[in-house]
Amino acid sequence: MGYYIGIDLGGTNIKAGVVNPEGKTIGKLSVKTNASRPMKEILVDMGQIALDVAASCALPISEISAIGIGSPGTPDNVSGQLIYATNLPFRNAPFRSVIGEMTGLPVYIDNDANCAAMAESVIGAAQGVADSVTITLGTGIGAGIIINHRIYSGFNQAGSEFGHTVIVVGGVLCSCGRKGCFESYASATGLIRMTQEAAAANPDSVINRLIAERNGKASAKTAFEAMREGDGTAAKLVDRYIEYLAEGLANVINAFMPEILVIGGGVCNEGEALLNPLLEKISDKTFFGPGVRKTEIRLAKLGNGAGIVGAAMMAKACYDDGLAG
Amino acid sequence: MGYYIGIDLGGTNIKAGVVNPEGKTIGKLSVKTNASRPMKEILVDMGQIALDVAASCALPISEISAIGIGSPGTPDNVSGQLIYATNLPFRNAPFRSVIGEMTGLPVYIDNDANCAAMAESVIGAAQGVADSVTITLGTGIGAGIIINHRIYSGFNQAGSEFGHTVIVVGGVLCSCGRKGCFESYASATGLIRMTQEAAAANPDSVINRLIAERNGKASAKTAFEAMREGDGTAAKLVDRYIEYLAEGLANVINAFMPEILVIGGGVCNEGEALLNPLLEKISDKTFFGPGVRKTEIRLAKLGNGAGIVGAAMMAKACYDDGLAG
Repeated sequence: MGYYIGIDLGGTNIKAGVVNPEGKTIGKLSVKTNASRPMKEILVDMGQIALDVAASCALPISEISAIGIGSPGTPDNVSGQLIYATNLPFRNAPFRSVIGEMTGLPVYIDNDANCAAMAESVIGAAQGVADSVTITLGTGIGAGIIINHRIYSGFNQAGSEFGHTVIVVGGVLCSCGRKGCFESYASATGLIRMTQEAAAANPDSVINRLIAERNGKASAKTAFEAMREGDGTAAKLVDRYIEYLAEGLANVINAFMPEILVIGGGVCNEGEALLNPLLEKISDKTFFGPGVRKTEIRLAKLGNGAGIVGAAMMAKACYDDGLAG
Repeated sequence: MGYYIGIDLGGTNIKAGVVNPEGKTIGKLSVKTNASRPMKEILVDMGQIALDVAASCALPISEISAIGIGSPGTPDNVSGQLIYATNLPFRNAPFRSVIGEMTGLPVYIDNDANCAAMAESVIGAAQGVADSVTITLGTGIGAGIIINHRIYSGFNQAGSEFGHTVIVVGGVLCSCGRKGCFESYASATGLIRMTQEAAAANPDSVINRLIAERNGKASAKTAFEAMREGDGTAAKLVDRYIEYLAEGLANVINAFMPEILVIGGGVCNEGEALLNPLLEKISDKTFFGPGVRKTEIRLAKLGNGAGIVGAAMMAKACYDDGLAG
């Protein structure tokens, strides 16, 4: 007893790790998801990798208290099923019954972005704090809310979709069908779109040369690189991107008032070129009366391993709370 | 023991009531706030009205378990002080020490919009549900979040400011200093502003006649009235208002996924002319995967009395949780 297995289910890999109660990963394994397979085969592989990773740490299964699964899509931690996921062949996938039967352990399930937030909360940038929000700027915008050391994602476990809150009514069409979503402006994808638009509108900009050097493709770094070369168009573009990002993050703060707001994802590698103007803009958009404590903004500490740790620590929280697994 | 006193502190009146554990108000009193007085006098009057309202119900003070105060501004329920309020002369106002000393009872404090949400949660439109959000469309936009039957307002009790989340980047300047806040478009004040703008831009609209009949002043009803008279400009305006409202409410749903979203305030008196198109628009802007339970939207049930009940039930929750009062 006392150890937890975290399984990070992705479209490409199933990763599993044994995690101690303090959030330290003591061993991990990975297998291909092979997402086009029948659902049942994937579930059985998840059960097997849980058994295997415990064995790889020379731990009898009796030393494991529970298994946590971080998955894309909408989980139902009451029934132990994954109701639905966009990129995986899952409808009401019986995670708990299949993996629980194979291992004899309680099985808990939550969304992968929520598990990432849990990991930051236990051993990352928001360690030791009761209320935090973690926002990951990637292809989309992932978000997880931690309230009183527990994941909060609404009555149906489908909440914390900050990426799909509108910041520009009538704005750019989002993949979700809404227009003007935060994700359409502040994700890496949004930045790339704006970079391409700026290049087309400003043929003399350094951005165009950088795109040409990358076989015609802009990346989320292109605008920052061109700005560092002194390009005025790029500087304006970066400022506009950070403005959108600040609007969305300020919205999160004004609504949730986390003690720490964690931001992660590749864009954050830009460091102070991103963070300094971002903090200044957020400060202008958030309101704390005199004497009211302010939300602190920090960069995420954890990388790819966060999925395993977060899933394991989510399981620990559920287990400690006595939830049926 | 077992009864609670709720005090609803407003800029005009201090209202107090004795409330039973089920949320039923069994007696109430009101005195003028006289907000320009020194802070201490207002606090003493609040302590006195608590004693008086218990006496008016023929209840010895020993029958009261705790006092709850719903106040504008940012409370600190740990120290028992009101840190700050915009329209009252309060900085670090020692509610707990003054009123606690006068009554010998535990004193808890929260924001008035949060208390209104608590009241809807206990005896109103969200009765019996663990997670709900109540949004009140008035001069501004008030909001309160209930998670697991408890008020959630962030680590500093300053959260749930949905009114000051931006839905139109670079939009109309808000009283808070941001541009494009939800409140600037979806509050009664926002509707009145848009009504005046529509009148000025469309001299032939019925809106102008209605404004003239009201001594040159538009109200939040004007656009709906003109629409009922068949005015095309008004119909477009109402549609635009409901569109903004739907965007902001859909943002609340996508972020919080409450089981029930309660909306209240004068605009809701428009009934189906507001609600039917609103529900349709929100449905287009919120996303639930197949099989995922949906947030239900309901009209607020409670009116002015919600402040007293909510403050009392907030106190009950704090008392039941064993918080220091």
